[in-house]
Amino acid sequence: MMEQVRIVEVGPRDGLQNEKQDVSTEIKLELIERLAVAGLRDIEVTSFVSPKWVPQMADQAEVMRGLRRWAGVNYPVLTPNLKGFEAAVAEGASEVAVFASASEGFSQKNINCSIDESIDRFVPVLDAAKRQGVKVRGYVSCVIACPYDGAIAPRQVAHVAARLYELGCYEVSLGDTIGVGTPGSVLPMLEAVAARVPLAALAGHYHDTYGMATANVHASYDFGLRVFDSSVAGLGGCPYAKGATGNVATEDLVYLLHGLNASTGIDLDALVDCGAWISAQLGRENGSRVGRAVLAKRS
Amino acid sequence: MMEQVRIVEVGPRDGLQNEKQDVSTEIKLELIERLAVAGLRDIEVTSFVSPKWVPQMADQAEVMRGLRRWAGVNYPVLTPNLKGFEAAVAEGASEVAVFASASEGFSQKNINCSIDESIDRFVPVLDAAKRQGVKVRGYVSCVIACPYDGAIAPRQVAHVAARLYELGCYEVSLGDTIGVGTPGSVLPMLEAVAARVPLAALAGHYHDTYGMATANVHASYDFGLRVFDSSVAGLGGCPYAKGATGNVATEDLVYLLHGLNASTGIDLDALVDCGAWISAQLGRENGSRVGRAVLAKRS
Repeated sequence: MMEQVRIVEVGPRDGLQNEKQDVSTEIKLELIERLAVAGLRDIEVTSFVSPKWVPQMADQAEVMRGLRRWAGVNYPVLTPNLKGFEAAVAEGASEVAVFASASEGFSQKNINCSIDESIDRFVPVLDAAKRQGVKVRGYVSCVIACPYDGAIAPRQVAHVAARLYELGCYEVSLGDTIGVGTPGSVLPMLEAVAARVPLAALAGHYHDTYGMATANVHASYDFGLRVFDSSVAGLGGCPYAKGATGNVATEDLVYLLHGLNASTGIDLDALVDCGAWISAQLGRENGSRVGRAVLAKRS
Repeated sequence: MMEQVRIVEVGPRDGLQNEKQDVSTEIKLELIERLAVAGLRDIEVTSFVSPKWVPQMADQAEVMRGLRRWAGVNYPVLTPNLKGFEAAVAEGASEVAVFASASEGFSQKNINCSIDESIDRFVPVLDAAKRQGVKVRGYVSCVIACPYDGAIAPRQVAHVAARLYELGCYEVSLGDTIGVGTPGSVLPMLEAVAARVPLAALAGHYHDTYGMATANVHASYDFGLRVFDSSVAGLGGCPYAKGATGNVATEDLVYLLHGLNASTGIDLDALVDCGAWISAQLGRENGSRVGRAVLAKRS
């Protein structure tokens, strides 16, 4: 029997948010559509944050209105607070995501409050979501290390993940935000978290900055994880090391999982085409090794 | 207790042989010297093949004469036949490598004979090496798949590896020449080979063409492998998919192994400097993700 793995595509949000270029709403909508055609069933499409902070996502309402909304496809959006949540729901969002950090230093520098305070701010979002039947996914960033604090203790990650889960997040995505982890640090982190949150409610979100993402996905899959986040063509850089890469490419993730005999429901050839298309639109190098190898072999 | 891992650096030979540019003997010698300074103790320096076939290695004698030859550093060279072996020994080689394929199609297309015939040709090399106290390492290419024959059966790899070992190779390096393997195909191959050749006499040689090298190294390390081949800055492309990458970068391999708490004896910062230096000399992008991330972080 093949294992089923769910892939959460974060390219249109986490990816494009960290690209330098302005991307038109039209291109974003075509990207989302091409991802759905390739078989993605969870596509994070935008973020309901202030355009003051994230100008790349200022067209969040237009993106929501332009979605073709396939049956069976989820289109989650990031909502940092109740105001964002309400705006997202007003545009028809049926799933949202909230974002905390496992690092005090990162939390202070990025959202100007402690980890616990940042989680307290989500309580009204989670309450409102529960009342309105909206699913909430939780992200934890810096699960291995932080650009300010260095290494993060696994029990600290477990504490934050458990709080998000207890508050009602149906799934907690564990992010190695700066991509420095190896299986030597990822596995102890997963062990600590899995002691407090059911394994089936966890996702791996590994950046490929140091080229370790496929090793970490493989180790996590062996550990029992069955949900991973990724970004087509590796969209998105690393804001903490300019010129370095960010998200693991969806093409590389799918290639690995299919190689492990897991089922993802994704058509790798269509996905490679989608990665080549968005890379050309942005005038950037294709950040997927699988994409580059498949395209080189075809030519 | 930390596990010791031996890394065989193949950049000056396998790497430069697959680069487009002409590289001067002087640059090659400086590269070898910088690798030794960074802590590499096995550096494959050149190939004693006809310059008709591999013009990039036509300066093999000059390279051998120019080596500083640190105590404790091995400088193996590739020798396809007895003529090459004798020339290598005449230039002071104390270790050589021979090369077979696990794929009939690859063997026929590349050396115009069957696998068994190619191995028979090594018998005089191994006999002469034994008499002269020269160590011989064996390479097996296409251990996962071949550009002509597709997937290769693990027992076929085991057959070729066992023959090389029985003929006297002290170590057999298993090469995923086109970089298509994942732990799903690499582990069954290793199981088949390890049933016939002692694990301690095996090395993993994984290309990163599809971005799977760190996953494959991690799975192989877990399986028990303690020797890996790699190329600083990922030198060398993939001759079967122009524009795609070849060897896994030594920097990425070292970063992963250190993350697994293994000891390599290598100074990663010095290695990153070496990778940046040779990339600049060749006017090519640094093929190491760790190299790029460390350099981006420094700047």
